[in-house]
Amino acid sequence: VTQIRIVSGQDVRRLLDMQSAMAAVERGYVLKSEKKALLFPIVCHDFSPQFTGDMDIKSGCIQSEGVLGLKLVTWFEPNPQRGFPALYGTILLCDSLTGRPLGLVDGSSITAIRTGAAGGVGAKHLANPAAQTALMVGTGLVAKYMIASTLLAMPHIQTVYISGPRDFNHAKQFARDLPQVLREEIFSFYSRDENLMQRLERAVFIPVERLEEVVPRCQVILTATPSHTPLIRREWVQPGTHFSCIGADMKGKQEIDAALFAGGRAFVDDLTQAVEVGEAELPVLQGIIQPGDLTEIGLVINHTAAGRQSAQDITIFDSTGIALQDLLCAGAVLRAAQALNIGTCAEL
Amino acid sequence: VTQIRIVSGQDVRRLLDMQSAMAAVERGYVLKSEKKALLFPIVCHDFSPQFTGDMDIKSGCIQSEGVLGLKLVTWFEPNPQRGFPALYGTILLCDSLTGRPLGLVDGSSITAIRTGAAGGVGAKHLANPAAQTALMVGTGLVAKYMIASTLLAMPHIQTVYISGPRDFNHAKQFARDLPQVLREEIFSFYSRDENLMQRLERAVFIPVERLEEVVPRCQVILTATPSHTPLIRREWVQPGTHFSCIGADMKGKQEIDAALFAGGRAFVDDLTQAVEVGEAELPVLQGIIQPGDLTEIGLVINHTAAGRQSAQDITIFDSTGIALQDLLCAGAVLRAAQALNIGTCAEL
Repeated sequence: VTQIRIVSGQDVRRLLDMQSAMAAVERGYVLKSEKKALLFPIVCHDFSPQFTGDMDIKSGCIQSEGVLGLKLVTWFEPNPQRGFPALYGTILLCDSLTGRPLGLVDGSSITAIRTGAAGGVGAKHLANPAAQTALMVGTGLVAKYMIASTLLAMPHIQTVYISGPRDFNHAKQFARDLPQVLREEIFSFYSRDENLMQRLERAVFIPVERLEEVVPRCQVILTATPSHTPLIRREWVQPGTHFSCIGADMKGKQEIDAALFAGGRAFVDDLTQAVEVGEAELPVLQGIIQPGDLTEIGLVINHTAAGRQSAQDITIFDSTGIALQDLLCAGAVLRAAQALNIGTCAEL
Repeated sequence: VTQIRIVSGQDVRRLLDMQSAMAAVERGYVLKSEKKALLFPIVCHDFSPQFTGDMDIKSGCIQSEGVLGLKLVTWFEPNPQRGFPALYGTILLCDSLTGRPLGLVDGSSITAIRTGAAGGVGAKHLANPAAQTALMVGTGLVAKYMIASTLLAMPHIQTVYISGPRDFNHAKQFARDLPQVLREEIFSFYSRDENLMQRLERAVFIPVERLEEVVPRCQVILTATPSHTPLIRREWVQPGTHFSCIGADMKGKQEIDAALFAGGRAFVDDLTQAVEVGEAELPVLQGIIQPGDLTEIGLVINHTAAGRQSAQDITIFDSTGIALQDLLCAGAVLRAAQALNIGTCAEL
């Protein structure tokens, strides 16, 4: 008889702390760049014109971590009108040694956390470590996780500007609520680490209406929007700035001026995906950079490639999202759930 | 909160009767041929030379049935030495209207039942309805289901020869046990239908060692072996014989003489798969038939294409297995499980 454990989104948020998520994401990037993991072809389907929606299946196998599995994600735009969330994600994990099913883990919570973690991982390895001021562009589901991972990774950041490009009032509300949200939902894991908590509590969040006024003052800029036109112009950006851009995940999406790639140094989670659907897509199409100018961040993390080389470098991390992040985070969740006997066990 | 139902293999066998499985398989064939269902590209990976094993993900969406989902199957040859089954299958079903996860259903039981059902569906639509004698080549997991579906579909069959091409003793044991296995595991669903039960109970199962002695006497021949060389020669086969071949599911596999395709009429579940990996692969490669000579059985079932045209026709049904069979059978299982509150419910 096969026993499988089902872990809900609520339990994922109780079990997966941001430092563990960041460690899993880093491990995923390194395993990918060292070709020590298998990434299978992505299945995807766009349901339009029948309705606005899509689905995809990302799968892979990481023998060294004992994990084989997949994530099924559906995004159906009409759902909220019917009382359902637009996005559903489900991760099925199997033992890579035997293929035996091990767990079913909510995938939308994992996606939000690991995507947010990627922003901080980019900053950790590419931003100027002395950076004191950050900007978050976007106030969606991922923003709080992206800010949290960046605060954890960048010990000197004390000010985070918040821009909701389409709705300043929402940005104000988001900034007002954020200290409590971070304390209760994300940093509560670290409540015993007083030094860390004191530092994290010092961060202030300031809503901003006009990006051109704050961009020049920020050394770390995080973007997580569904934008199809650049929100940040090259002329606003000071030397030394780091970007972590996670919004672009399909053709045509773009958050920052393609010209920033010209003088900058660009890093990606996956070369193929970045050029096809990421922030790097349009700079490559426009001939501003060549695919060969992009470096996988896994090679920076494992010290095979250079990251930032001077305090003046403009660095860009383009994260499109890879299955290994999901599988490794879900694996960490499942181990914690087993240890604490959280979730539902079922015979399969 | 999303509730998901987990249904084990044991419960699948209690919930899915063979007539319902055959109806689901027929519906899948028709929906496929009428292009009323989406079949997504198959993900597959062969782990050799690291070890002998493979995995695949088959997925699809059937809006008219409300089902979107996938089946993950792993086959790891070394497993039995470690105390695990070689094959694991897991089916994840979502609501096609919203994408919401609905259920996780054991996939190995579904695979065996729906594959066996396909054999009987082939006989039902293509064999001479007056057939009285059948032959089952193969005594593996699927054989009992294939025999059951054929007995249900063919009211005049009273004798079924059983050949285990590699092990006659196993065939003898299998034939001896079969009446009880069928009665207790498969026909028990129909115990209230006395006429049907009386007919089914009349069937006799006779183990055979030499295929050439019985092939000429059988009007329906079922094959379910992993063979890579033809087991049945053309010269043994009488006019009017029907074949349901379900063993060939990868390049190089073959159960019957390719020459049988020359004079016969060949039907398949999926044109592309049959030519790539099915029983039709080698006859096409050898130029014995053209892909255009093959007809999808869904078109026969919905009366768009002709099936058998005379009592003398040799008909061949080449079943490679399609995701729609799995999704529709799993959907039927899930509906029954919900109605009877069987399985485990979990928050996701």
